[in-house]
Amino acid sequence: MRSVSKENITKAFMGYCGEETDPRLHFVLEKLVTHLHDFAREVELTHEEWRKGLELLLKAGDISTPERNEFVLMSDVLGLSSLVDMINSAEEGTPSSVLGPFHILGAPDLPVGGDLKQDNESPTVIVGGTVKDSQGIPISGAEFEIWQTAENGLYSNQDTAQPDYNLRAHMKVGSDGKYLFSTIRPAPYTVPDDGPVGELLHATGREPWRPSHLHFIVTAPGHRTLVTEVFPSDDPYLNQDAVFGVRDALVMQYQEKTDPAEIPPGLAIGNDVTVPYYMVDFDFVLAPE
Amino acid sequence: MRSVSKENITKAFMGYCGEETDPRLHFVLEKLVTHLHDFAREVELTHEEWRKGLELLLKAGDISTPERNEFVLMSDVLGLSSLVDMINSAEEGTPSSVLGPFHILGAPDLPVGGDLKQDNESPTVIVGGTVKDSQGIPISGAEFEIWQTAENGLYSNQDTAQPDYNLRAHMKVGSDGKYLFSTIRPAPYTVPDDGPVGELLHATGREPWRPSHLHFIVTAPGHRTLVTEVFPSDDPYLNQDAVFGVRDALVMQYQEKTDPAEIPPGLAIGNDVTVPYYMVDFDFVLAPE
Repeated sequence: MRSVSKENITKAFMGYCGEETDPRLHFVLEKLVTHLHDFAREVELTHEEWRKGLELLLKAGDISTPERNEFVLMSDVLGLSSLVDMINSAEEGTPSSVLGPFHILGAPDLPVGGDLKQDNESPTVIVGGTVKDSQGIPISGAEFEIWQTAENGLYSNQDTAQPDYNLRAHMKVGSDGKYLFSTIRPAPYTVPDDGPVGELLHATGREPWRPSHLHFIVTAPGHRTLVTEVFPSDDPYLNQDAVFGVRDALVMQYQEKTDPAEIPPGLAIGNDVTVPYYMVDFDFVLAPE
Repeated sequence: MRSVSKENITKAFMGYCGEETDPRLHFVLEKLVTHLHDFAREVELTHEEWRKGLELLLKAGDISTPERNEFVLMSDVLGLSSLVDMINSAEEGTPSSVLGPFHILGAPDLPVGGDLKQDNESPTVIVGGTVKDSQGIPISGAEFEIWQTAENGLYSNQDTAQPDYNLRAHMKVGSDGKYLFSTIRPAPYTVPDDGPVGELLHATGREPWRPSHLHFIVTAPGHRTLVTEVFPSDDPYLNQDAVFGVRDALVMQYQEKTDPAEIPPGLAIGNDVTVPYYMVDFDFVLAPE
């Protein structure tokens, strides 16, 4: 196409793509460019706004390091990461939620009933439940990984004061599908808001906070892997999670307990808890593969 | 909004924006996020594709320097830069086209009839015409800047072998609206294709070439400033400009001439040209302010 206009530029773009282009790439690009051009036309994007947008991207590149990816964070706060996650999730079973940037490989094994709290200061939380299939039948041979923030809102790999793999574990669930461990309540935290993503959050009066959560990856033969997070029902940021991770079915109760006799059997810490302590009961339902 | 779903995430995003948000920012973000989310839903974007897209952005940040802005280039080859340009152009008069990254301030004055060719090797091209208003009346007091590539396809600020400000000038147009200068034919060139933008071009079988062009910025009191480019009708890349800059009304003819007697009067080089030489006749029509 020789003469490009506001009206034909999207068609011109597609016309410039060669016939050998991979069909999926061709389809994705066509939709991407159609939406990009429609956006610019609908808002009558000014040169100044265009420059500002490109400047944000350049700043995102500048602030990114091997430890911090501002583009992923941008995707997170625009809801894209969560949307991609939901698009690719199983329709049934426990909903998935964002993996986030703090998962690391190699967490140590913890037996069912093991203690993750160790020397972390904070009331004890006892978390347990069953890993089931979509018929409600406990799955034998399930495994999971758990990771969470310490009381200061930091993950072990963000904080040199924490021992390696603090509050991280890999667990083989019992043949009855049951899991159980003691830990502390994770703390809410803010996403990094000292870069261009923060600029966007501040300009729109948004909170950089994420509600506190326990991260889980649950796997079992014959079932779809579940990457998810579980949130407490009383978290103040539940209605405004900066990265759009909250789903109703992922909200659990911290039940306050004052009687050590209610501590379930099979815990490594036995009855050795300070009161009040808290109990969380959460079952995972895995979709078939 | 507490429970975010594929269906309500766009609404959730807007709900998270505070009431104090600047109304224009609110409108632009709403459209941006609506298109972004619709795109992801329509193509059912996979995690792998999402990762690939974010990786391209990260690579664009890595390859960008004060001299090279890969995000602007990305915008260029997606047609966004040209579209923003057309959205903000006057409806009447000579169409605008992209400024590009090679304009620099401080080009030396050249009188009407002056020679820009100097020691550049290449046949002489004589460019002239009239700067008019939309009624066709010549504008007195117009000025313009011109810049172009040398025979090797490089601008003076890309090529240390060229003198400073080679093939760049500022001209005060005559009170009769007429301009005239001698130069060489600019060469076509490729946009940088050794980064993520090149990856995209190669994956879609697109040319990194831009057709050759003369850049102009034309200003006159009481008129809208015109930033444009003028392309030769015989350029092989006219139908596939990597940055979507070509408009029918910006295409001109290089008329081959063999008789020095046809050289217009008032040229600093007089009749001192090697034949064949070329003549270009191009009028600029400025829209009212």
